[in-house]
This record gives sequence, structure tokens and C-alpha cells, in this order.
Amino acid sequence: MSDLVLSSLDEGVLTLTFNRPDRLNAWTDAMGRRYFDLLEEAERDPGVRVVVVTGAGRGFCAGADFQTLKALQEGSYDVEPDERPATHPTTIGKPVIAAVNGACAGLGLVHAVVCDLVFTAAEAKWTTAFARRGLVAEYGLAWILPRLIGQARAMDILLSGRTFTGVEAGELGLANRVAPGERLLEETLAYARELAAHSSPASMAVIKRQVWGDWQRSLEESRTEAVRLMMESFARPDFAEGVAGFLERRPPAFPPFAGHLPA
Amino acid sequence: MSDLVLSSLDEGVLTLTFNRPDRLNAWTDAMGRRYFDLLEEAERDPGVRVVVVTGAGRGFCAGADFQTLKALQEGSYDVEPDERPATHPTTIGKPVIAAVNGACAGLGLVHAVVCDLVFTAAEAKWTTAFARRGLVAEYGLAWILPRLIGQARAMDILLSGRTFTGVEAGELGLANRVAPGERLLEETLAYARELAAHSSPASMAVIKRQVWGDWQRSLEESRTEAVRLMMESFARPDFAEGVAGFLERRPPAFPPFAGHLPA
Amino acid sequence: MSDLVLSSLDEGVLTLTFNRPDRLNAWTDAMGRRYFDLLEEAERDPGVRVVVVTGAGRGFCAGADFQTLKALQEGSYDVEPDERPATHPTTIGKPVIAAVNGACAGLGLVHAVVCDLVFTAAEAKWTTAFARRGLVAEYGLAWILPRLIGQARAMDILLSGRTFTGVEAGELGLANRVAPGERLLEETLAYARELAAHSSPASMAVIKRQVWGDWQRSLEESRTEAVRLMMESFARPDFAEGVAGFLERRPPAFPPFAGHLPA
Repeated sequence: MSDLVLSSLDEGVLTLTFNRPDRLNAWTDAMGRRYFDLLEEAERDPGVRVVVVTGAGRGFCAGADFQTLKALQEGSYDVEPDERPATHPTTIGKPVIAAVNGACAGLGLVHAVVCDLVFTAAEAKWTTAFARRGLVAEYGLAWILPRLIGQARAMDILLSGRTFTGVEAGELGLANRVAPGERLLEETLAYARELAAHSSPASMAVIKRQVWGDWQRSLEESRTEAVRLMMESFARPDFAEGVAGFLERRPPAFPPFAGHLPA
Repeated sequence: MSDLVLSSLDEGVLTLTFNRPDRLNAWTDAMGRRYFDLLEEAERDPGVRVVVVTGAGRGFCAGADFQTLKALQEGSYDVEPDERPATHPTTIGKPVIAAVNGACAGLGLVHAVVCDLVFTAAEAKWTTAFARRGLVAEYGLAWILPRLIGQARAMDILLSGRTFTGVEAGELGLANRVAPGERLLEETLAYARELAAHSSPASMAVIKRQVWGDWQRSLEESRTEAVRLMMESFARPDFAEGVAGFLERRPPAFPPFAGHLPA
Repeated sequence: MSDLVLSSLDEGVLTLTFNRPDRLNAWTDAMGRRYFDLLEEAERDPGVRVVVVTGAGRGFCAGADFQTLKALQEGSYDVEPDERPATHPTTIGKPVIAAVNGACAGLGLVHAVVCDLVFTAAEAKWTTAFARRGLVAEYGLAWILPRLIGQARAMDILLSGRTFTGVEAGELGLANRVAPGERLLEETLAYARELAAHSSPASMAVIKRQVWGDWQRSLEESRTEAVRLMMESFARPDFAEGVAGFLERRPPAFPPFAGHLPA
């Protein structure tokens, strides 16, 4: 069970790897539960500062496993669904970066774009696929995509379900960075290590919550809340260390963080 | 009256053509009523899967007809206005794609960007124009443009009312695709036929409503609603056909759709 | 005191210049108060149609002054803070354009992106910086940045606090225009003079308020409000002049504007 998602920690960066390579890492409830369990462990583990998510073999995640889809159609689907939704990574108090190494389709695309940042292989094949299967914009995709890439571009990839490359994902604004497949993980890890070394873990947790949450606020509410959060930040050791490191022209040594922010 | 907007159906794609070419298809209430009537007919017609909107002659739509503007200024404007607003196409349960073949100004630009997707001729001249006539961001443009192209780009084209080409419309993110004028309609129709052939009409109707509507939802509300819509989609024949076509490696044969979705 | 921010008016364009060049125009409460006072004067002055904000010397604004930060840390910060928030420029009834001539960091970046448009020098160094100092997304940045450049790009520059050039600011969508440093002010002023000469000041005030405000409205609310504002605009001399200038093929001569719009 536990090797449905591989896990390895290095320099504060935890890499989680979907590990059903013979099925292009197609999503199953068991793999999903393991992934979310590992994300929650990562949040609590002070040694983890950043999480990278990628796929074993040629795919990132090719969508829902077809055994599951078939069972759904036949009415024989009885696995108790996880109570944690696909958007769960947005609530984890540490940055989660998707490294889309290959096929990224349907539910797989959902799991990529609910990450805070997305890096993709240039040759990865992306598709929302849903409209071509008679399905809908699943699990919040109709909320997220327009906020990532604008209204009309979201319509394009949702209505058509067409396949596009990682290069186009970059042009559309779906991916922050595009790299040749053989350099993707290396470049993603380099960026993640930079976050782990130079950004305050407490700051990242607060900022992540602000950015996902401020879509529901007015500018004035956002600003007022930011002032409150800034006041809190003045009292944390991270602020003293961040200023000291800057003045002493050395990298900051921010304390570890176990994901517990005041609500 | 009926030839104010030309209409032709081919392979599930209905092409509507604004047809006042001697006035660069400047908007009149009569033309607008005819356009919206045809959109509503298209929604009810099971033979129509996608709508393309373009203009006859050199223009797409050069804005409000100046007879109308003059009458407005002189207080002699007495045509009963259509009760259907400029944003009406966003409520039609089929994709509407603008093919901006030429001048796209003021109210014409409004009618382009309330379409779900926009294709433009490279050499088309675009302008919001309103600020240069002493007017405002009309009919929801101040809502739509920032969601299409971002806050500062929307400010640029709204505050300046400057003229820009279709090429820049593509760079700004206003247009999904840019093509040389002589190939524009052909490329738009090819894309539209792809939607008609490969995307479930019921899926497109649901997704369109999700994308326009989710700006008013939180991520959690969007996700919850998407789960409900997914459950509904499992019961439609489109899902069975979409999966069957995929497994049998053949194009899906989705049933026709008359625009009646559960509310 | 008054030369903390320089001020000069030409052809309806007021240029305000942060003037602490020996500190890269680092922000102090005194400089901020002077800046906001001048913005309010500009709003009331009928001779001012557009405001451009830039920095003296090599920087635009390098962030909060370190004397202030130190005082904050030592608890000795006792200057009464200005009651006007960092987002104050968004409420000024005239367009405010940032010309980011150099270092634009932390609070300096906030003051750039609360402007309606941003022009930047290609070689200017940009950074949010906050995560690297143990701070948060300050003063509404978590609201503004995703609406300017999309969710994932906002996450990138907020979580990493990395430094990027003006060229990348343009690619990200943070800046409307990128120019070589030696031509930046000239290009910004040319754009600003175009607004001053061709756009109705009353229209610009209304449009600015619409664009900032419509993030809190539904499309239908935005459209309804736009109809009301359009009706108001029909009664202003700007509309008559805008149409007359257009028909007579001459530049419009819009009346001056002292920032008083009906609420």
C-alpha cells in the first residue's frame, strides 16, 4: 500500500511520487488516500519546508483509473470515498509544487493545478478531457482555471478537452516553468530548495493561505487582514532573523515549522 | 429584417453573420434583437452544437450606430429597448465563438468578449473607444476584461480607448487565436467543428455555466457544486458514450442537445 | 519636508517623484504622507488629468526604510501612522501610472502595483521580498497580484521573494510596458499625455472606479451598474464633445475635471 506514493526528503524538500507507472499513475482512491496522508505528515514534520509532487515513469497522472469509472457506470463502486477533497493540497500549510513529468489528464490535471505552483516537462501531454467523456469541470476546475489563465483560455481547454503540450501549458499560464523532460525534476528541486533555504516557513504558510483566501475578500478586507497578519509576523523569530540575515548579508536561518498557524 | 443577421448551419456549427456591411455592422436594436432571437433558436435546435459569430464585409461590429447615438443625444430615441442584455450570449447553453474579422469597437468589442471564446484576424482593429467619447465601461466590460486579461491590461485598454491590432489582442489574452484575415473563418470553423464532433453538448452546457458562474462562488462552493454536477453527468448517456468511444478508440457519437439542463 | 516628493505638471500630466535617492527612495511615513497629500491635491486640481509616479536616482522604492523596521523590532516606533492605507491611490479619481525606474522591493512593489498601470525599466530589479524577511503578503498584495498575473504566478513571486527584472515583470503581466531605462520616463509620459489629450477625465474617473470595484460584483450587478453610469454619462458635456470631435474628425476638447463624481 505505502509504495503507491514514494516519498523522499532532502534539504527540506519532500518529493512525493505517484507510483503506478504501468497505469500512467491513474488515480485510485487508495493512491489518493496515501497522497493526502503524506501531505498531512509533511505539514506536521518540521523537517519538511516544501513539497514536490511528480509521477513515476512516463506519466504524471492520466486521470481516474478506468476500473473506477467502469464500476461507477455499473453501479458497483463501493469503496468508501476519502472525506478529503481534491482541493486538499490548497489547505496544507506548506508550498506544494507539481512537477508534471508526462501525461496529465482529467483528474490528473485537477491534481496538478490545485498545487501552488506548476512546473512541466515541455513534451508532457495535457488535457482536461472531461467534455470528451460526457463529464463536467470536476472538483473546482471551473473556479481555479479562470483564476490561473483567464476566462477565455479556461473555456478553450474545458470545452474542447483538446490535448496540448507542456510548452503550450506554459504559454497559457498553466505552468510557471517549462523544462525539457530530462531536466524537469532537477529544475523543480532547485527552485524548491531555494524556497526551503531563503523563505520563512511561517511566512510561506501565511502567504499561501492569504492568496487562496483573498479571492473571497474585497481589497479593503484583504488589506485589513494583511495588517493584522503583519503585526503577528513582527512577533515571530522569523522576522528578527530575516532582518538580521539581510543586514549581515548572510542567508537567513529560519526556524523549522510544524504547520501550526493561529486560525 | 431577417437578413440583418445571416445564418447558416453546417456539421453542427451555426454561423451567424452581422449583416450591415455598409456600416461596418454598427449595432442597432433591430440587429441585436435578430441576433439574440437566432441565439435562442440555436439553443433550442438539437442540430446546433456550437455557434460562431462574425461580420459581413470589412468589419465585425464598429459599435453603436451613430443614428442611435444622435437620437440619444437629442432625446428622440424611442425604440423600445430589448429586454435581453448585451451579456445574453453568456446564458445560452451552447458555446458561442466570436470570429472578429475586422473593426471591433465600443459596443462591438462588448459583443465579442461576452462570447465564450474569441478568434481574431491579425489585422483587425480593436478599441474600447468609450473613454474617447465621454462614456463609461459599458455593459459589464469592467467585470469581464479584468477576468480575461488581468487588472492592469484592462485599465490600459479601457482608460486609453486606444486602437490595437488583432495581434496585440492575442498577446493581451483578449483572443484565444489569431489568424490572417483570409484564414480566420476557416480556422474558427475547424475549431468549432472539433467541439461539435468530440465534445458532449450536455457537458459543454454544464461547463459553460460553471465557468461563468464560479466567479461568484468560493472554491469550496465550486467544488461541492461540481461533485453534484458530476453525479448528474454519470446518469446521462453522454458519459456511457464518451467512455465507450474512448475504450473502443473511435470518436464518440454524443446525442443532440436542445439546451434543457436541470436548473 | 515638501521635497520628499517632487512634483511637476506639464500638459495635464503631473509627475510625482519619490525623492530620497540616497536611500533608493525607501519608504518613510513622512514621504508617504507627502505622496498621498499630493495625490489628493492632484485629484482636486482641474489642471491635472493623469498622474505619473517615479523615483529619483537609481531606485523606484526599495521598501520600508530600515530605521522604521528597526524601530518596529525594538518597539520604539512611535510615529503616528497615516490613516490612509497603501491602497489609497486606487481611490483617487484620476489615473495613476507607475514608472518603475529601478529597485522596486517589498513595500515599494506594493506602491507600484496599486497604481492603475505600470511601466517599468527593462533592467529594474523587482522583488516582493516579504517571505525572505519573515513577513507576509502586505497591504492587499495577496488580493492584487493574482488579479494582475494569475494565481500561480502570484504564488511564485510571493512565496519565493526572488528578484526578477523588469523584462520578466512584463512577461508575468505585472507591467503593461517595458522600456530601456533611459527611455522609460519619456515613454510613460507620452502614454500619459495621450490619456490627457484624448480620454475624457470624467470617463476615466468612472471607469477606474468600475474596474477596481467590479471584482466585488456579479456580472449582472456590474452590467446593471454600467447601464446606470452610461445614462449619467449621456448627460455630461463630455459625451457631446466626444461625439462631436469624432464626427468632425478632430481631437476632443474635454472639460477639466476636479474629481467630484456622484457617489
